[in-house]
Amino acid sequence: MPIREDVVVGLLFTILDLIGTFAFAISGAIAGIRHRLDLFGVLVLSFAAATFGGVIRDVVIGAHPPASIEDWRYVAVSVLAGLTTFYWYSKVTRLRQALLLFDAIGLGLFVVTGAGKALAYQLGPVPAVLLGILTGIGGGVVRDVLVSQVPMVFRREIYATAALVGASLVVAGHALQLPAQPVAIVGAVVCFGIRMLALHRDWHFPVARLPESLE
Amino acid sequence: MPIREDVVVGLLFTILDLIGTFAFAISGAIAGIRHRLDLFGVLVLSFAAATFGGVIRDVVIGAHPPASIEDWRYVAVSVLAGLTTFYWYSKVTRLRQALLLFDAIGLGLFVVTGAGKALAYQLGPVPAVLLGILTGIGGGVVRDVLVSQVPMVFRREIYATAALVGASLVVAGHALQLPAQPVAIVGAVVCFGIRMLALHRDWHFPVARLPESLE
Amino acid sequence: MPIREDVVVGLLFTILDLIGTFAFAISGAIAGIRHRLDLFGVLVLSFAAATFGGVIRDVVIGAHPPASIEDWRYVAVSVLAGLTTFYWYSKVTRLRQALLLFDAIGLGLFVVTGAGKALAYQLGPVPAVLLGILTGIGGGVVRDVLVSQVPMVFRREIYATAALVGASLVVAGHALQLPAQPVAIVGAVVCFGIRMLALHRDWHFPVARLPESLE
Repeated sequence: MPIREDVVVGLLFTILDLIGTFAFAISGAIAGIRHRLDLFGVLVLSFAAATFGGVIRDVVIGAHPPASIEDWRYVAVSVLAGLTTFYWYSKVTRLRQALLLFDAIGLGLFVVTGAGKALAYQLGPVPAVLLGILTGIGGGVVRDVLVSQVPMVFRREIYATAALVGASLVVAGHALQLPAQPVAIVGAVVCFGIRMLALHRDWHFPVARLPESLE
Repeated sequence: MPIREDVVVGLLFTILDLIGTFAFAISGAIAGIRHRLDLFGVLVLSFAAATFGGVIRDVVIGAHPPASIEDWRYVAVSVLAGLTTFYWYSKVTRLRQALLLFDAIGLGLFVVTGAGKALAYQLGPVPAVLLGILTGIGGGVVRDVLVSQVPMVFRREIYATAALVGASLVVAGHALQLPAQPVAIVGAVVCFGIRMLALHRDWHFPVARLPESLE
Repeated sequence: MPIREDVVVGLLFTILDLIGTFAFAISGAIAGIRHRLDLFGVLVLSFAAATFGGVIRDVVIGAHPPASIEDWRYVAVSVLAGLTTFYWYSKVTRLRQALLLFDAIGLGLFVVTGAGKALAYQLGPVPAVLLGILTGIGGGVVRDVLVSQVPMVFRREIYATAALVGASLVVAGHALQLPAQPVAIVGAVVCFGIRMLALHRDWHFPVARLPESLE
């Protein structure tokens, strides 16, 4: 019996999702270490950065309990990333290019799974796009709030724009009744591509002009 | 056939609610611009300030998905307010009196709809009052936390006291089995009135005395 | 007819739970007063510190509405603690040893009730432990975020380790099908004991070594 294609794609999604979780968790651990948190604080920040986008999404749509705290693999990957960063901080931070690549993979996957889950819970197109973005950026926002920083994503928005485009593709595909899995792959790849392009070309969105007295 | 009175009142509520949403969203945009967020960050803060009071209320009482992310008009009004403030910052901030007026309208409506929805979900009087206050002040609290500020409402509490009185009137009217709509109107008007009076007379609540060593 | 043992234990739990709530609420009030909040802000911080661990737990597992906002006694105890601290700040803060003792009692009880409630909602062992910890430390995290501080619990983790051990005991007892009430008592006492020992022996967990350039 041949291996079924959708099983392979499903497995690939899970593996990439765990890689993204690992990258997000490392960003949490780095933030925690820079703010001189102890080991427990670093692990909490790893876990929050990696999973709270999905936790907030599930709480908002009423999916109890949230998938990412129920599945022990996400907890395990977060803790592993946190411990690795805690004990080999210099080595981990030297892998900056790889981290940005993994982070972009995670963003693409979190956004399409977030928008897809919202649609599966019968939400309309506007909230589904919002929840796709929230799933992608929520973990990073919570991470930054927990160390009393203005969330980084509010200051380099090509990150969020990539999320917006990825989520919109998923919602558009759903509205056109296209098959869900290929649409999700396209959405994730486009989101990933925009993010990588923005990184390499240093794209930025505008900041408002303030009267001189406030600058 | 005459136009039914409750339809007119319902329409009036919706219009005032959108005006309040617009004012709350502008407060979010102003906070974002002052903290040098880019366009995306400013739009997120507009949306958060305008809708997260209601989102938190709905998540707490289990109303999934939250009304203010499901109804595209609230998203649209928030984005419109954010863009307007982003591109015409000086002009918008010059309208300070109008903004405070609209904000007080929003407070009155958010508080009575928040308390009313909690009662409709069978909550008791104490949680209904708490959720009315939360609906009124929650958006501003999230806005301030996202830019790493201690929430303004914790430092000028006549704002919250107005919310407390408005929510309590709704709950008292419900306990006395008075008709819901007139009670809501009275609650919103009283909350609005206390807020405007507090603004014009510069009312403040006390701050605790600290030992000299801590001042 | 003799008084039934489980009723006595239930009553004892409620009394200790309210004592813990009182201690947590005082920690919120002290944080608010130190940050110069007005009376309303101080009361919000009292309430948040005392109840938001449980509120977040209930929102995550889908227990609507959260027990600690539905039961007026928790609101009343929080407000009472806030007012007491507001008007007798110097006297309250002089009772430091008693506050730490009550806080450790609260931690033990919140952790075991949190893990127990998660198990009652059919969550698996890993999320039940996470939710036990969250119930114990969530209120303090929200308190610190609301005054723009990095949560204290991330910097003195024996607090969280005590929570981890207490929650793990409850989950292990459940897996071994031991009777719930004695297991909860053991979990709470062990959590309390670790916290008190850590306080008296000044135990700390490690902080990561940073490259010199970042210190």
